[in-house]
Amino acid sequence: MTTPTITCTPVAEEEPVDPLADVLAAIAPPDAEAMAAARERQDRMTKPRGSLGALEEVSVRLAGLAGSCPPPLPEPACVAVFAADHGVHAQGVTPWPQEVTAQMVANFLAGGAVINAFAAQAGAEVTVVDIGVAADLDPVPGLLPRKIGRGTADFTAGPAMTRDQAVAAITAGAEVARDLVAAGNRCLVTGDMGIANTTASAALVCAFTGRDPVGVTGRGTGIDDETYARKVDVVSRGLALHQPDRADPVGVLAAFGGFEHAALAGFILGGAALRVPVILDGMIAGAAALAAAALAPAAADCCVAGHRSAEPGHAITLDHLGLRPLVDLELRLGEGTGALLALPIAASAVRALRDVATFDSAGVTDKSR
Amino acid sequence: MTTPTITCTPVAEEEPVDPLADVLAAIAPPDAEAMAAARERQDRMTKPRGSLGALEEVSVRLAGLAGSCPPPLPEPACVAVFAADHGVHAQGVTPWPQEVTAQMVANFLAGGAVINAFAAQAGAEVTVVDIGVAADLDPVPGLLPRKIGRGTADFTAGPAMTRDQAVAAITAGAEVARDLVAAGNRCLVTGDMGIANTTASAALVCAFTGRDPVGVTGRGTGIDDETYARKVDVVSRGLALHQPDRADPVGVLAAFGGFEHAALAGFILGGAALRVPVILDGMIAGAAALAAAALAPAAADCCVAGHRSAEPGHAITLDHLGLRPLVDLELRLGEGTGALLALPIAASAVRALRDVATFDSAGVTDKSR
Repeated sequence: MTTPTITCTPVAEEEPVDPLADVLAAIAPPDAEAMAAARERQDRMTKPRGSLGALEEVSVRLAGLAGSCPPPLPEPACVAVFAADHGVHAQGVTPWPQEVTAQMVANFLAGGAVINAFAAQAGAEVTVVDIGVAADLDPVPGLLPRKIGRGTADFTAGPAMTRDQAVAAITAGAEVARDLVAAGNRCLVTGDMGIANTTASAALVCAFTGRDPVGVTGRGTGIDDETYARKVDVVSRGLALHQPDRADPVGVLAAFGGFEHAALAGFILGGAALRVPVILDGMIAGAAALAAAALAPAAADCCVAGHRSAEPGHAITLDHLGLRPLVDLELRLGEGTGALLALPIAASAVRALRDVATFDSAGVTDKSR
Repeated sequence: MTTPTITCTPVAEEEPVDPLADVLAAIAPPDAEAMAAARERQDRMTKPRGSLGALEEVSVRLAGLAGSCPPPLPEPACVAVFAADHGVHAQGVTPWPQEVTAQMVANFLAGGAVINAFAAQAGAEVTVVDIGVAADLDPVPGLLPRKIGRGTADFTAGPAMTRDQAVAAITAGAEVARDLVAAGNRCLVTGDMGIANTTASAALVCAFTGRDPVGVTGRGTGIDDETYARKVDVVSRGLALHQPDRADPVGVLAAFGGFEHAALAGFILGGAALRVPVILDGMIAGAAALAAAALAPAAADCCVAGHRSAEPGHAITLDHLGLRPLVDLELRLGEGTGALLALPIAASAVRALRDVATFDSAGVTDKSR
């Protein structure tokens, strides 16, 4: 009988742990074979070719993401509402006081907001992530404490956050995605809450697309002409100050981003790494998706554009991402509401691909034969 | 003890039983008080005013229809697929053979069509109504035998149906609505199947809106240029032959209509009489809704436009009815598919009005106060 020898591997030369690098490395392009199989099946289903319009491409996209035809139904689904505050609020870009972010988080957790009603209708869960609310939030079920800071800094005076904070927020978002998928979710839905976050979004969209603040900046939840002019000026000053380089997505996020933008970018990357579809809500999710796609272009392939919001910069964002929105009803609420309306539509697209009979199997005459 | 005298009321001077007249008499305008209450509540809900976009008006409309705020959820829902054949098929307006109508009915009943997949996703039932298929259909569960005739006559040669047939089809549709509501449904969804029915729809839309066949006629399920030119000519010849008078909606339906158009008009009227929302599918339902609104203008108030189809005449129809579609994804399949995609959206609109907290109740600061 010998005493076992315990050997110790030297660690000095190992790379530091970098969870974000692991996520990025896991993101691969869509499966061309599964996409081709989905297109071919769409053409044999008992319906005129192309008659499902934009839904056919949704089914093809989700097949490519899953690497199988048909792909799994995007159920169950969970909306993660990333909440944070914004230093740029001090510039007077919105009439809503900053406290409303924390008040609305409490409303989400009490089940009283529109996102709760829409989630109940869609059969989705709601998870709220405190990624940077400028208030102490009481621990309650449904709230994930992931605070990176008590709100960002004012981006007209300096970077909204440090690079380390940006990376931490991205990583936190990816980990939320990982945990929700591990809990059985097969669809991730983006949500957000943060007074002044359309201002940060406009700056991010300008930085990633190169567009002018006048065409991108919108009226958010509803502001008067004077506030709107100030908001455009704030975005312009921020861009002039930071001279963003879109080849450095973490730097762009650090310059302007809300913590929720960085976390949502990570959430999208996390979904892409696990090949689970992410339904994007509006302007805030779109800005985050631009960051995610800048970090890993294939991340856009895991996204379904839930809706087009009333914000002008959102249409620009969707064009840039090559995404067509499923719902277009002039919503400008955020929270994830537009994305949740799209969830049953995306599920219907998959269900049709999965369940509909072919001309041959149903004995229906195909006029093209 | 006396023998009871049995008296017999003379019937000679009574009006003949006219179920359609009863339905029309029951249709009343929306409840202005409930609509005002819904608008007022939308403005107190914990969201920026107007931020639910087009959904706010959906909730107001359904409150007005129900006469209560909030209105009941539009659940459970049933899609009634009215199937019929068209004499105008003989004019070569589509490459699909007429037998496909009966084949697709069998597909619906076997659960193999897109409408079945979408209904499963939306949690809706599917009922198929044989209102005039040109084939004998075997009795099976889920099929309502209400055949008015074995397809209509060719409207380029004479009226598609007699006035009596038109009234019988309208009445049958209203009775289907009545029966589905009696079975517990709180939302009616229009569906249709009938090879060549976009041709009949185009003629109906021209007759009811006064628009030109060139702007109204579309490519239906997909036809080549030659067939399209023939289709426009067929519609034009029909209009020239019948010189339709939109003040006589039954006459217009008899001139051009499929039996399914007349039945769908009755289905809408039946829903309106019972104050149950009717979600309209595309071009065929739209043409039927024009007929229903011509018979009882308030019938349009019970309708929710499910989607805008790829048919050009459909946008014209929705404008004429004053309806905004909830889904706009270039579907051109029919069956009720576009309407079923809209069902969870309409339900979400109602659920928000019903369940969302107000600024006061949730302790959220309202920036306008």
